[in-house]
Amino acid sequence: MQIVTRVREMQALAESLRTEGKRIGVVPTMGYLHAGHLSLIELARRHSDSVITTLFVNPAQFGPGEDLDRYPRDFPRDQDLATRAGTDILFSPQTTEMYPAGYATYVEVERVSSILEGKFRPTHFRGVATIVTKLLNLTKPHVAVFGQKDAQQAFLIRKLAADLNFNLEILVAPTVREEDGLALSSRNSYLSPQERSRASALYRSLKRAESLIAGGERSAAAVRAQTMDILSRAQPTQIDYVALVRPDSFTEVETLTPPSVLVALAVRFGSTRLIDNMIIPFPESR
Amino acid sequence: MQIVTRVREMQALAESLRTEGKRIGVVPTMGYLHAGHLSLIELARRHSDSVITTLFVNPAQFGPGEDLDRYPRDFPRDQDLATRAGTDILFSPQTTEMYPAGYATYVEVERVSSILEGKFRPTHFRGVATIVTKLLNLTKPHVAVFGQKDAQQAFLIRKLAADLNFNLEILVAPTVREEDGLALSSRNSYLSPQERSRASALYRSLKRAESLIAGGERSAAAVRAQTMDILSRAQPTQIDYVALVRPDSFTEVETLTPPSVLVALAVRFGSTRLIDNMIIPFPESR
Repeated sequence: MQIVTRVREMQALAESLRTEGKRIGVVPTMGYLHAGHLSLIELARRHSDSVITTLFVNPAQFGPGEDLDRYPRDFPRDQDLATRAGTDILFSPQTTEMYPAGYATYVEVERVSSILEGKFRPTHFRGVATIVTKLLNLTKPHVAVFGQKDAQQAFLIRKLAADLNFNLEILVAPTVREEDGLALSSRNSYLSPQERSRASALYRSLKRAESLIAGGERSAAAVRAQTMDILSRAQPTQIDYVALVRPDSFTEVETLTPPSVLVALAVRFGSTRLIDNMIIPFPESR
Repeated sequence: MQIVTRVREMQALAESLRTEGKRIGVVPTMGYLHAGHLSLIELARRHSDSVITTLFVNPAQFGPGEDLDRYPRDFPRDQDLATRAGTDILFSPQTTEMYPAGYATYVEVERVSSILEGKFRPTHFRGVATIVTKLLNLTKPHVAVFGQKDAQQAFLIRKLAADLNFNLEILVAPTVREEDGLALSSRNSYLSPQERSRASALYRSLKRAESLIAGGERSAAAVRAQTMDILSRAQPTQIDYVALVRPDSFTEVETLTPPSVLVALAVRFGSTRLIDNMIIPFPESR
């Protein structure tokens, strides 16, 4: 595996891979890799000749007071895991080269950036859209892989790529979970043992939503209430939201209609903010 | 010359040119081509194997009440002129394909978008930055050519390309002028004969600024006052601004310092808004 830290070197390398006719797959990450990331790298591997894993803790997607400074980092471990999962090139640029003094250009995807996650993290998706645009220009991929765990991000990136005419395929890989259902996240490392145990409520609440819908419940309010109920019993510090949206538009629904609904939620335990979601198909659409 | 109207076809063609090792040059225009545009196409010709001229009246860069509806169009003539200047591919997409229903993604270059032209046309540069990003992704150029006549736009596009890591060279071609100095512009066609005659004041005012600076004047206010004076005598409907900025940062200056200053101005005759500018080198920097 080759490690690239300079922007110009990455771009020249991507261009030469393209000229050789290689199919490039990219997996953008903020590092501190876990099995979820590795599944993205493995998926990219199956769809490309050269896999570029990017590792960059993007300051533009953290708001004031968020966890940029304490975001976990372990480069030697990431390097080892990324190699073993099938990365050919690990691109790990410096912040000063990605956002030099006087940096001024931002990409904004309207509407989806200001709902749900965007309501609680007002500049987050502007930072995501901007870094993804930059990374796509630097790595010139034929395919880019993102995780379903960040469902709203995946939706936004598909929209961005279509709107700005990026010529690539976007793959979204299923969420990888712990034994008790907790979605893997670098932020899980912040949880105390007690919080970690309570955090399994996220998945349980989504499974409850799933069984309600399987049982014929069609009221978003009813599903939401029971989902909230399970979350509340885990005594979180705060439930930011539980939302039922159409997976193809991210618009909230009142009455659930086929073929599927996406239930998305965000919950805080102490200062740790966890998100999760599930796309729930309707029985008649299975 | 090949005419392409579909987005997918343009992108596939650009990709195949790249695969063949061809150097692509792009000249984005809004059509109604004049000798200024043709000089851009000729410059692109000298720097590339395949010249793509794009012809698209971009609604996103017109504000409410601006001249989108009456912007002059003459496709057969443009086709003829573009071919003769050396265009290989004329890309002329439909608005509905460039901005389909639900379009939501915009590119914003902060600061430079809100000064001078941006102050009078608040959403203009957002529209420019967005369409340029889209056109670069669609035409995949090695070199893109813009005109110095739109100096602030050229500055913004250089900034955008650097910030978003577009891998291409940007060339800015000198302004082409009429006999009396009026900068060529598609909007000159709006001028009545009387307005047309008065409009030569733009160039004369810039020449006055030039001779003042050559003569040792170092006060921006003094240069500005005399420039305004020449413009005022032409009885314009309104002078939007006369600004003296550093060409490398587009920040206004009070005391003129080497190596050069950019004098930019915007003036209205009736409902026609004209812009012009001149980069004036200092005598000691020549």
